[in-house]
Amino acid sequence: MKAKVHVYLKPGVLDVQGKAVEGALHGLGWGGVSNVRVGKLLEFDMDGADAEAAKGELKAMCEKLLANTVIESYKVEVA
Amino acid sequence: MKAKVHVYLKPGVLDVQGKAVEGALHGLGWGGVSNVRVGKLLEFDMDGADAEAAKGELKAMCEKLLANTVIESYKVEVA
Repeated sequence: MKAKVHVYLKPGVLDVQGKAVEGALHGLGWGGVSNVRVGKLLEFDMDGADAEAAKGELKAMCEKLLANTVIESYKVEVA
Repeated sequence: MKAKVHVYLKPGVLDVQGKAVEGALHGLGWGGVSNVRVGKLLEFDMDGADAEAAKGELKAMCEKLLANTVIESYKVEVA
C-alpha cells in the first residue's frame, strides 16, 4: 500500500525557508506570490492491506519520528 | 488562488534522506516500510484568476528556481 505523509510547520510558526523562497520569487519578477510555506512530503510503501490500520501506524510514525509536533503538523494518506 | 508545488527527486536518484528515514523506521519496529522518498511541498497564494496561466507561471518558477531539474522533478497544482 502506498503511503503519503505531509509534514508542515504549524500556522503562526515562522517559515524561514518559505520567506527565502518568497523573496527570491519576488526578485525574479513574481510579485504576486505570498504566504509561501515549505513542507515535507514523504512517500513510501507499507506492508498490510487495511487502510485504517495503516493510517493509525502512520500517525504513530509521525508522533514518534517524522514530525516535530511542537512546531509541525502532519496529514497522512493511504492509497 | 492557492498553488501547490511538489518537488521530488527523480526515480533512480539516491534519496539519502529517505534512506535515513527508512532506517530509523525499521529501527523503531516498522519493518514493513520500504522505498521511502522525501520531497518538498510548497504551498502559496498567487494573484490572478486563470488556472491555466497560473500553471504556466508555476512551471516557469520550478524551472528557474524551485527545482533542480538535473535531479528533481515537479508537479504543480492550483485550486
